Amino acid sequence: MSVLTLYNRERSGNCYKVRLMLSLLGLDYEKVAVHREGKNRNNLPPGYDSLNPLRQLPVLVADGKPYWGTIAILVFLARKHGGTAWLPDDAEGEGEVTQWLSLGQNEIFYGLGRARSMRANRWHGYGTLDEAHQIAAVALRALEGRLGERDWLALDRTTIADVACYSYTVFAPEGGISLKPYPAVRAWLARIQALPGYLPTPPYDGAGGPLVE
Amino acid sequence: MSVLTLYNRERSGNCYKVRLMLSLLGLDYEKVAVHREGKNRNNLPPGYDSLNPLRQLPVLVADGKPYWGTIAILVFLARKHGGTAWLPDDAEGEGEVTQWLSLGQNEIFYGLGRARSMRANRWHGYGTLDEAHQIAAVALRALEGRLGERDWLALDRTTIADVACYSYTVFAPEGGISLKPYPAVRAWLARIQALPGYLPTPPYDGAGGPLVE
Repeated sequence: MSVLTLYNRERSGNCYKVRLMLSLLGLDYEKVAVHREGKNRNNLPPGYDSLNPLRQLPVLVADGKPYWGTIAILVFLARKHGGTAWLPDDAEGEGEVTQWLSLGQNEIFYGLGRARSMRANRWHGYGTLDEAHQIAAVALRALEGRLGERDWLALDRTTIADVACYSYTVFAPEGGISLKPYPAVRAWLARIQALPGYLPTPPYDGAGGPLVE
Repeated sequence: MSVLTLYNRERSGNCYKVRLMLSLLGLDYEKVAVHREGKNRNNLPPGYDSLNPLRQLPVLVADGKPYWGTIAILVFLARKHGGTAWLPDDAEGEGEVTQWLSLGQNEIFYGLGRARSMRANRWHGYGTLDEAHQIAAVALRALEGRLGERDWLALDRTTIADVACYSYTVFAPEGGISLKPYPAVRAWLARIQALPGYLPTPPYDGAGGPLVE
């Protein structure tokens, strides 16, 4: 069995994605806790640049080899420990899954993820809350469109596409975004929460003010 | 042989990535030309939402099935037509390639790609040119760090990681970004340009003003 070490901050939505995947796969791993230092900076351990030249979280070290980029970590874990159920290896299936990996890292992160960080005064990038909400709406419409017709984002089963898009979507209320207009998205969140090995989200710390319903 | 149709705008860096990949693989395809309509809008054909719910370019339709998201299209093409040389199917190799796919769609796009669009007054999103340049510097440092030690971004061969990161990096001067401080990046661009089947970039249209050296 390989040795897995996750450089982790509990409330980071990208770190949570990886912890959720590890939990769904039933894998043991060690955590190295990274904390915020002031608003804009993580308290990264010395030598972190050699693990990730972008100095971002998460990093997963597997048998001594570091992987950065949340999508890459999900792909690595699925291929190594999950089999083709979680990530198919035929062109059509893998292409379909990858579409949603990309949505998770772009519109979902820059929309829903950014709104959550901004509202909690933890966002270190650019843009306004309004812009984040506009991008979130684009992402949520794409999710709702698909999930109105099918149970899962790609193919007809749970894949890493669902894990990749779940994280910041479930945090929508922390970013001031109501999921009321998206019933199919809410039903899909509940399906993920019912999966064997599901790992609950970190409890809301109240930093962004009252949750919207 | 499958029938491939690309919804394409010539100067889009993401569309160019797909055309470059198709050319490197020696594949025939049809193009459907999409033009800009005013500053913010592409003149998308009727029914485009059913091809891509995000209404973005490019989309590749392969044997009637649409793929959106540039990363997903590269993954599909490599798996279907390129073999494991372009995209490995072992966990370690695929994880390593995927890291750079993610960089191409995030820091390289939001840094170098955004700077190019902003300078040409074609950017429809948010942020300032200064912010784009800061993000570009993060991406270029990561590329330079790797390419100072190895010829290619992932593994020891050309993969879709190189195609994914080439496009907006090669357009740096159009965005007012000099590649002079990044000799390893420049040598890598030249290696890509020497590949069999390489497709030249669309010629600069001057919209962003004088190129930096």
